[in-house]
Order: sequence, then structure tokens, then C-alpha cells
Amino acid sequence: VNRVLVTGATGFIGRHALAPLVERGFDVHAASRAELREGGGVTWHEADLLQDGAAASLVASVRPTHLLHLAWCTEYGVYWSSPENLAWLARSLDLIRAFREAGGRRAVVAGTCAEYDWRGDICSADAPLAPTTMYGASKNALRQVLERYAAVTGLSVAWGRIYFPFGPGEQPCRVVAAAARGIVEGKRVGFSSGRQVRDFLYVDDVAEAFAALVAAVAEGTFDVGSGTGVALGDLLQQLERLAGTSGLVVIGARPDRDEPTRIVAETTRMARDVGWSPRVPLDEGLRRTLDWWRVRSERPLA
Amino acid sequence: VNRVLVTGATGFIGRHALAPLVERGFDVHAASRAELREGGGVTWHEADLLQDGAAASLVASVRPTHLLHLAWCTEYGVYWSSPENLAWLARSLDLIRAFREAGGRRAVVAGTCAEYDWRGDICSADAPLAPTTMYGASKNALRQVLERYAAVTGLSVAWGRIYFPFGPGEQPCRVVAAAARGIVEGKRVGFSSGRQVRDFLYVDDVAEAFAALVAAVAEGTFDVGSGTGVALGDLLQQLERLAGTSGLVVIGARPDRDEPTRIVAETTRMARDVGWSPRVPLDEGLRRTLDWWRVRSERPLA
Repeated sequence: VNRVLVTGATGFIGRHALAPLVERGFDVHAASRAELREGGGVTWHEADLLQDGAAASLVASVRPTHLLHLAWCTEYGVYWSSPENLAWLARSLDLIRAFREAGGRRAVVAGTCAEYDWRGDICSADAPLAPTTMYGASKNALRQVLERYAAVTGLSVAWGRIYFPFGPGEQPCRVVAAAARGIVEGKRVGFSSGRQVRDFLYVDDVAEAFAALVAAVAEGTFDVGSGTGVALGDLLQQLERLAGTSGLVVIGARPDRDEPTRIVAETTRMARDVGWSPRVPLDEGLRRTLDWWRVRSERPLA
Repeated sequence: VNRVLVTGATGFIGRHALAPLVERGFDVHAASRAELREGGGVTWHEADLLQDGAAASLVASVRPTHLLHLAWCTEYGVYWSSPENLAWLARSLDLIRAFREAGGRRAVVAGTCAEYDWRGDICSADAPLAPTTMYGASKNALRQVLERYAAVTGLSVAWGRIYFPFGPGEQPCRVVAAAARGIVEGKRVGFSSGRQVRDFLYVDDVAEAFAALVAAVAEGTFDVGSGTGVALGDLLQQLERLAGTSGLVVIGARPDRDEPTRIVAETTRMARDVGWSPRVPLDEGLRRTLDWWRVRSERPLA
């Protein structure tokens, strides 16, 4: 039987990736720093992958055939330039090498659209791979080295470049979560011009894409996005329409960042070589996100 | 006083870098895996940087203001595609971060001309940074991440891209060493067409360049080469001429590798921003290399 080790298994994407892997017949082993969960046909392992030797012990005890490596520093407002990116790059190299040397066959790793150069006006699959952030540089570095490592060792590697995921469990300061929470709580929230076009994908679809990549044989780099761009302002107004509110989302209250006007995934490879395409339309994803924040805001804060 | 920690201090380049650093007034601390040497005004530390936590302990005990990081896997015929490159990349990230977090101010790191794409006919400073080997990819990855880390933390970083060093102590299977040894021992040695133009630099000059980089303030990437290309065949024939032999260097006995016809350093930045230029002419370097092999070949092998 194929056994997959999932890192970052309690994270925003990871928690949604476990069931799709179980459905695909994998013996699913999930690693998490602290919370040991139960159920869902998943075996949990406590491991802090930033600790020296933790990756090697974990791999030795699980002996996975497949690896889905999602763990990384992702704290809002911090991860773009956190020195922890160096630690995650180093420990990811350790993990993947330990995995291969223990007989692992296929590794799927989370990349980012921030591997591209964002200094141009449009970020597309044609943009140079010249990241300007420590986060983007560290992910891009890992990808480049893994390509060579795969070529030399025969390890099958797929790299899933994530665009703009949203949905239940997203960090509350990120843009879609902040808007949904504001709307649900009846509070006004300010945003930039909203003219920037981004590729938003509902988190269940992102997680499904990674499960599909684990089960597939295709190698190389894959854009994990919807393939469709939407102006951020349009998405936020749609969110208000769906909630039946108005005036809570304040467009133009903040300056625009110096970022590309358009960042949209190229999904041809995911459809053709992996057989994956998104299932949750944007409206439906936004509705579910609002519902999730409604349930949370009805609960008293602990 | 400025204190420099030198890794790879018993290596081909490292051993020649210590005296120039002492001359520049540094309190020199040298790290080596096994051999603890003495003298020369250098303090030696035993450290296997590939061991978990070794970098952090070393930095904590030395508390250097400057770092010259030369250690890496360099075993002839192996290092281009050794999985050890992943370990060196990971441990280098750990080392440099530990160095910075302990108050380190300036790090100088050994890069390689193999960071460039060698698939073109000419490899120059204009070539894309798209390494095709695991060694080149790992060094290039480290460079890219350090650039971002430097920008965020204020660490002063200089990256010295090494071309083709030669001289006493070079690994015996590398091209100039193999020729010198063959000539000295009166044995024929076969080479490729020799038409490839490379930038050869005597190892003392390479080491001087790194010492100069440590003492300088200029940041960014620097080519460490002579700036002059010489066809390999011409260099080998020159070696025979200097030795007064003939027919021992056999040109055309081996196929050419699929590598650029020309790989030559761009030394403007080293001259202008670091004040360094090569001091040992090619002939003199070749003479000293022959002398070194003569002394060795007179000794019986242990």
C-alpha cells in the first residue's frame, strides 16, 4: 500500500488534504507540531520539523512511499521576510533527502506564485523566476535544488505553485478572511483600490489539487490556481452581495502595494497531466467562507 | 578587533586564505573537521559542520564579526551531483543565520561559475543564472536566499564566484594537477581537445581575493578569476615547456564534454570595489605547481 506523510497537516491547506488522500487509497500519516488529532482514517505524529533530526526520525518511523510537504512559516505579515524561511529551506532539504534515502518514491512540495518576479506589471508563467522576497527566494531555491536532486536520484518530484487560496480557516488578517469577518460582524473594513487581478481558489480545491498531485505520476512544476483572474474589488463586492450587506467593505481606504496588476495561474498542466480542475465556483466558495465566519462569530470568544 | 571564522580552512583555497587574513589584522579562527593544526597566529576549532547543531556551537564559542565560508563538498568526480550538496546548502543556511544572530556583521561565501547556465556556447556574466548541476543549483540557491536575507537583516554579504583555481594541493585528478603530476613522474596523461577556453587562477591569488573580500565593505557578487581566458591545450603545452618535457601531455585522447567553449571571469568589480587584482602570472603559477609536485613525487608514498 502507498503511504503518504503529510507535513503541515493542521495548516490551512493541509487539514483539507487528508480526506482526499484517504479517498485515493493512501495510508495517510499526518505530522503536526502540537495538536494531535484523531479520526478520519489518519495516523497522527507529533513532530517539530524545525528541530534538528526531527525529519529523519519522523521518516524513519513512518517509512512513507509518498511525501506531501506543506509545512513552512506562513504567519501573516511576517512570513514574507522572516529569517525562519532559511530554517524551513534547510529543514525541507533535510526532510526530502531523508525521505528519499529511506526509500521514498514521490515528493509533492508546495511552491508559490511569489517565485516569479513581481516587479513587472503582469506576473504570468512567462515571468522570470526572480523572487524579490525572502519567502519567494527560499521556495524558489528549494525548487531549483529539488529539480537537480530528482534528476540525479530518480526521485519523482512535483511542485505545486500556490496562488491565492481562501476559505474557512484562513488567517483572519488575510484579505478575503478580513472582509468576510467584517461583513459577518457588521464592521467596516478598509482595502486598497481593488483593481489588482488575482487568481483566487477555494481551499478545498487547493487541497484536492495537492492530493491529485500526490496520486499522479507527472513530474515538474504545476500552477495550483483556478486559471481565472478576478479583480479584488469585484470579489469583495460580490462577498457583500452574497451576504446582503453594503458599505462594510471600503474600497480605496488603503494605498495599493507596488505589486503586479495581474497574477493568474496557468492551469493547463494540472488539467492535462494530473486530471484535476477546480470544482467549487467562486460564488460557492465565498458563500461557504461567510457561513464559516458566521458560525465563529456566534460563538463567544474564549 | 575583527574576528573572522574560516570554514573549510584546511581545504585547497582555505589553507591559503589564513595568512592573508592575519596580515590584514584579523583575529583568525579556523574550523576543520579533523586536522587540528597549529601556528601562523591562527586559532583552530574542531567542527564537523554537517553535524546537527555544530554550526551554532562553533559560532557561539568563536563569536566572530566576520565569516569566510568556504566549506562544501568538493570531492573530484562526485561533487557535481552528490546529494551532499543538499546537506551543505542546509548547513550553510544554519551557519550564516547563527552567525548573524550572534552579532556577525559580514559574511563572504564561496560561489562558483557553475551557477551560470552552461548550455550556451559561452558562459559570461551575461549568461542566465540557470545551473544544470546539483552543485551549481545548490550554490545558486544559497546565493539567492542570502541576497534576500542580507536585505532584510542588514548583514553585509559578498559572494565570490570561483572560476578555475589551480596550484599546490589541488586534487590530483583535476586537470592541471593531473598534467603536472604526469609530467613530473614522466607518465603520459590524456586530455580532451584542449580547445575550451577557461579562466585559470593560481590558488594563492584566489585565497588573496577572498581575504580582500572579507576586509572590504562592498556587497553583492564578485567574479574571482584572472579575467583572462586561456585554451586548456595551450596551458598544458606551456606546462610541458616549463618542465622541459614533451609528449607527456596527450591532447585529444579524450572526448570533449558538452560544456561552453569559453568560461571567463569579469573582474572589474574585484579591481574597482575591492582593490584586488591577481599577482601571480600564469607561468609563475604553473612553475610553482610543478615544483610542488616534484617535491611530492620525490617522497615515497606512505
